[in-house]
Amino acid sequence: MLEALKQAVYEANMDLPKYGLVTFTWGNVSGIDRESGLVAIKPSGVPYEELRAEQMVIVDLEGNVVEGNLRPSSDTPTHVALYRAFKGIGGIVHTHSPWATSWAQAGRAVPALGTTHGDYFYGEIPCTRPMTEQEINGAYELETGNVIIETFVNGGIDPNQVPAALVFSHAPFCWGKDPHNAVHNAVVVEEVAKMALHTFALNPSVQPMDQDLLDRHYLRKHGQNAYYGQK
Amino acid sequence: MLEALKQAVYEANMDLPKYGLVTFTWGNVSGIDRESGLVAIKPSGVPYEELRAEQMVIVDLEGNVVEGNLRPSSDTPTHVALYRAFKGIGGIVHTHSPWATSWAQAGRAVPALGTTHGDYFYGEIPCTRPMTEQEINGAYELETGNVIIETFVNGGIDPNQVPAALVFSHAPFCWGKDPHNAVHNAVVVEEVAKMALHTFALNPSVQPMDQDLLDRHYLRKHGQNAYYGQK
Amino acid sequence: MLEALKQAVYEANMDLPKYGLVTFTWGNVSGIDRESGLVAIKPSGVPYEELRAEQMVIVDLEGNVVEGNLRPSSDTPTHVALYRAFKGIGGIVHTHSPWATSWAQAGRAVPALGTTHGDYFYGEIPCTRPMTEQEINGAYELETGNVIIETFVNGGIDPNQVPAALVFSHAPFCWGKDPHNAVHNAVVVEEVAKMALHTFALNPSVQPMDQDLLDRHYLRKHGQNAYYGQK
Amino acid sequence: MLEALKQAVYEANMDLPKYGLVTFTWGNVSGIDRESGLVAIKPSGVPYEELRAEQMVIVDLEGNVVEGNLRPSSDTPTHVALYRAFKGIGGIVHTHSPWATSWAQAGRAVPALGTTHGDYFYGEIPCTRPMTEQEINGAYELETGNVIIETFVNGGIDPNQVPAALVFSHAPFCWGKDPHNAVHNAVVVEEVAKMALHTFALNPSVQPMDQDLLDRHYLRKHGQNAYYGQK
Repeated sequence: MLEALKQAVYEANMDLPKYGLVTFTWGNVSGIDRESGLVAIKPSGVPYEELRAEQMVIVDLEGNVVEGNLRPSSDTPTHVALYRAFKGIGGIVHTHSPWATSWAQAGRAVPALGTTHGDYFYGEIPCTRPMTEQEINGAYELETGNVIIETFVNGGIDPNQVPAALVFSHAPFCWGKDPHNAVHNAVVVEEVAKMALHTFALNPSVQPMDQDLLDRHYLRKHGQNAYYGQK
Repeated sequence: MLEALKQAVYEANMDLPKYGLVTFTWGNVSGIDRESGLVAIKPSGVPYEELRAEQMVIVDLEGNVVEGNLRPSSDTPTHVALYRAFKGIGGIVHTHSPWATSWAQAGRAVPALGTTHGDYFYGEIPCTRPMTEQEINGAYELETGNVIIETFVNGGIDPNQVPAALVFSHAPFCWGKDPHNAVHNAVVVEEVAKMALHTFALNPSVQPMDQDLLDRHYLRKHGQNAYYGQK
Repeated sequence: MLEALKQAVYEANMDLPKYGLVTFTWGNVSGIDRESGLVAIKPSGVPYEELRAEQMVIVDLEGNVVEGNLRPSSDTPTHVALYRAFKGIGGIVHTHSPWATSWAQAGRAVPALGTTHGDYFYGEIPCTRPMTEQEINGAYELETGNVIIETFVNGGIDPNQVPAALVFSHAPFCWGKDPHNAVHNAVVVEEVAKMALHTFALNPSVQPMDQDLLDRHYLRKHGQNAYYGQK
Repeated sequence: MLEALKQAVYEANMDLPKYGLVTFTWGNVSGIDRESGLVAIKPSGVPYEELRAEQMVIVDLEGNVVEGNLRPSSDTPTHVALYRAFKGIGGIVHTHSPWATSWAQAGRAVPALGTTHGDYFYGEIPCTRPMTEQEINGAYELETGNVIIETFVNGGIDPNQVPAALVFSHAPFCWGKDPHNAVHNAVVVEEVAKMALHTFALNPSVQPMDQDLLDRHYLRKHGQNAYYGQK
């Protein structure tokens, strides 16, 4: 079932090592079929060089395995929590990509410092609060999803306009309209995280970019009046 | 028409991923035929792996499409503004190469700190002022060209001797006598931006290089008495 | 003798350049057969591109050569000292991988700043004290092993739970249940050393990660209740 | 004439892009035949991808071309000055490798911070004083050699034990017993320059490594009692 989705999720997973976003098995991609409410996700701990499309595990929105012989990613409860809360997204990526992870470990959001950021993210990429002892010792992976959702709800951030979050002391989660687009956004997160770190090294008091400039660049690529690319 | 120029612009565009200057479609190269006043430029948003020479779009110096089925790069008004103002240049490159972009985001010019810089740039690589709300909300890409031109005019900088600029909160634009040479300069900008950042990390109070040394190196490679390379 | 071990040690050595952990011959891997108490180790100073499995040298736990025509790695006394003291380990790697070496040169332990670290190391990766003049001028390589052992004994650190150490002014030694696993840990040390440096650049007062989070991640992958990967 | 030397110099030049030490044509290697006092050196400005062994230019110790149709490297007067002063060396490399160049631009010597450095360089890699206006406007490339020589003579540094120097505001010159060994040392300079920068980032008050440790490591690889590698 859902062979096309499994293939898309497989290919998006294979793009992680291609783009240098993962070491060993430190990453996973999922995709959702909104009609059936079923999610295809990477199996846990399988090396990318051995991964095959048919190994993708199908789970429902509660994370129960519906199809597949392998265990799904241990981060599955995070993925399905995000799919339940963020209705507009179709793919999710988790990596420990090093520049973004450094910001997560520092507990800092990545501010919008330039047009590269503004072309994809309509504002800063937020970092969650630290998780509580209860959350960590409870349903940890589910709570990881919850703390991301809380960050967007409390901050009034639209997950469709800021398709990524940093989990405090952990690493980034990114998403998009489909698995391929989610990986695309994960590449951008890593790139803007790297440049933002160097920007602060050059100018420790740098301020977020001008709001008009952010509007211009974000809207140049997104929304009704976008005029970038071939329509 | 202008098949040789389209081929040269195509090849220069393909050099951007080869030299690691672009992620996804974040860059474009153009070239001008000064006799006809026509410019060949990359189409907007086409991935490099799919790009073909015949897709290069021909525009006039006002940015109107003269030949081609695809939209030209959304940065076309910036390119043609620079061609109109800087009569001596034959090719332009725009990238979001990460080291140079970090300086642009920091709002800092890259000072001439050593002979690598001085071999190509006769002084600092300037950073523009922030663009105004009116410029951003008006003909933004044209105004991007204008703010670069203003930087050179007001600063008394010769664009033939300093073939690059950083646009504040944005990224570098580089140029040269032809598209190939413009890409060459874009590689140099990235390399000297990287080294300048590390130089400041090692010595926060470092001063620009000695003027005599800059003269020596720049003139060793440029002008009538150049003695580098094979004549 | 011990052909399978020599093959495993050979392959683990060849993984060092593959993972970018070594320049020239700056690294070596060994593995132990606990039943016979014999160790297979890389010969000294042989370039990786010329290395062959049959060149692995067999030494006893005192470092005496038992089989092989080549000299064993000059670091052999360090390896055998660690095998004698750390009964649970089966492979050892020494490299001068640049990020970890920078921490060793700075004389700083790499604190556990995030889950990437916590997935592999149950606490900070310690840095030894400086070696004394007597140790340096005496049986230097043996004393290098001794100062690592002292660091773990005095610090109450379990080498099975923290499979790496930084030697002051020198570089990392890493280990694992077998040569392949030791190299895996060496890759992780380099990755977390890189991210920790960038984390401090972003937040100089960053504190080690929450203990509950460290417990959760370490135990998610290790011990009886591990639930990561395929069982 | 000197075909074997030309071949060796050619191969050493081709190793510069292989090891990532050069961008474009920013580097050159020479080698000397001490018996005849003749030097083979890269021609000026020829791209590495087009370079051929027979293009190596033969010059005498005054820098006069003895054989070859191409101009020798514009840095030839620096090379021959070093060969005249440093009788024990057989090959010289000049690059603008980015980490070492950043130290040169910062005007700082690279201190011996760890055993990686100590395995090759018996003390800090010095940085020359700034060159004077007269030196720059006079026989500049010859004076570049002279200021390196002055640094070693005045500092009491043995060029056989510290086979590299940084030229202020410029870049490194490295040497060795032959062209291949000189390139080897240039790789080491770049690697230790990178690690030293990161070491200072982690510990701004770090001191040079213990002298006993430096002695031990340098002498473990060099001199009569060396015991590293295969004899």
